[in-house]
Amino acid sequence: MKISELSRRTGVPVASIKYFRRQGLLPAGRATAATLAEYGEEHAERLRLIKALTTLGGLSIAATRDVLGAVDEAHTTEGALGAISYALPVPVASQGGADEDEDAAAEEAAGAEVAELLTALDWRAPGTSPHVRGLTTALKELRRLDAQYAPGELAAYARLAESVARLDLERAECLDDPLALAERAVIVFAICAPVFELLRRLAQEDQVRRRMTDEEAGASPACGPH
Amino acid sequence: MKISELSRRTGVPVASIKYFRRQGLLPAGRATAATLAEYGEEHAERLRLIKALTTLGGLSIAATRDVLGAVDEAHTTEGALGAISYALPVPVASQGGADEDEDAAAEEAAGAEVAELLTALDWRAPGTSPHVRGLTTALKELRRLDAQYAPGELAAYARLAESVARLDLERAECLDDPLALAERAVIVFAICAPVFELLRRLAQEDQVRRRMTDEEAGASPACGPH
Repeated sequence: MKISELSRRTGVPVASIKYFRRQGLLPAGRATAATLAEYGEEHAERLRLIKALTTLGGLSIAATRDVLGAVDEAHTTEGALGAISYALPVPVASQGGADEDEDAAAEEAAGAEVAELLTALDWRAPGTSPHVRGLTTALKELRRLDAQYAPGELAAYARLAESVARLDLERAECLDDPLALAERAVIVFAICAPVFELLRRLAQEDQVRRRMTDEEAGASPACGPH
Repeated sequence: MKISELSRRTGVPVASIKYFRRQGLLPAGRATAATLAEYGEEHAERLRLIKALTTLGGLSIAATRDVLGAVDEAHTTEGALGAISYALPVPVASQGGADEDEDAAAEEAAGAEVAELLTALDWRAPGTSPHVRGLTTALKELRRLDAQYAPGELAAYARLAESVARLDLERAECLDDPLALAERAVIVFAICAPVFELLRRLAQEDQVRRRMTDEEAGASPACGPH
C-alpha cells in the first residue's frame, strides 16, 4: 500500500509516519520509484504499536525506540518481558535533595525500607534494578513530606501488586492474539498500567461517594485506632 | 525566614520559588521592605507539596494549580478527595480515530464494556466522570490493537483495584500526619500511584525471574486453556 493508504488505515498522519521513519522507529518501505515506497501489513502493525506506546503509553520517542529495540532483540518471552520492563520509563525520577546530609540520611532510611520489604516478600530484584532505585526515591520523598507508610502498609500494597503482576504475566503469555509475543508484552506492560490506575481511581470515586452517603446517614467514619 | 533560607530548607531553588509565586501556586510572603519578604512554616510546607506534586506526581503547573485550588476550597475530607480526584490529570487522553465510522463503533463497544463492568461491580460513577471517559478511551484503543481484555479479566483487575483504593482511603483519612487532611489526600492520590506502579513492576520482575529459573529446570509454562 502507499503511504496515504497506510495513514488512512492506522490513523497516523503522513507527516508523523515520515517522522517515525526518520527516527528509526519504523522500517523503510519497499522502494517502487525514486519518491514512492510500498508498505505492507507489518508496517501498519508496527505503526499501531508506535501510536499506542506514544499516546496511550505516554512514552517519549526515545523511550519508544528503546522498547521497540528490546522487542526486536528478544528471543524468549521472559527475555522480552525483562528487557521491556527495564526499557520503560520509571514512574519516579530522582530529585535533587534539600540538604546533602539530610538527603544521605533519608536515602539510607528509604533504602533500608526497600531492602526489608523485598526480603519480607521474598522478591528477587537486583539493587541495580531501576524499579528498586525508583521505589527508594519515592519512599525518600514521602519521608521528607512526613507521609511515609505505616509499618505493614507498604507490604499490604505489595501483596496486591503481586496479584496484579500475576494477572499481567498471564495476559502477556497466554492470550490468543495476532501481535507477536513480545509486542503483546509491551502492550500489557506499557499500556495496561494506565488502565489499572483508572480502575483504582474509579474505585476511589465509588468509595468516597459511599462514605458521603453514609455520613449523611449519620454513620461514623471507619478509622481504626493508630 | 528569608527566601534564601526557604530555598535551603525545601531544596527548591530561589528562581523556582519566585516562579511558583508568579504562577499563583504559593502565597506571597509578608513584605518587610520594598524588595524583602518574610516567609513562614506554611510556605515551606506548601512548597514541599508543590515540589512533590510536580516532580514525584509528575503534574504540570496548571494541574498543580487545579489540585491546590481543590485542596484550599474543600471543607470535608470526602469533598477534598472528590475534588482532588477530578482535578488530577487522567492517565489516558483521548486520541484521534483511525476512521470515523470504525471509531464510532469502537467507542460504542468500549462504552458498553465500561457500563457493564460498573454494573457488575456496583461501582457508582457518573458518565461525566473523567475516569469513566478515560477507561472508555483506553479500552477502545486496546480493542483497536486487538488486545482487549478477555471476559472476566477486567473484573479481576477491578477487584484488586478496589482493594488498593480501600487502602488508599484508609491512608488518606486516618494517618497521624502533620499535613492537613486535604493535603494528605493529595499525597495519597497523586504521589502514591507511582509507588504502586513500582511495586507492580518489581513483582513482575520477580515473577519473570522465577519463570526463567523454572524453564531452565524444565518446568512447563503455567498457561491455562483458552
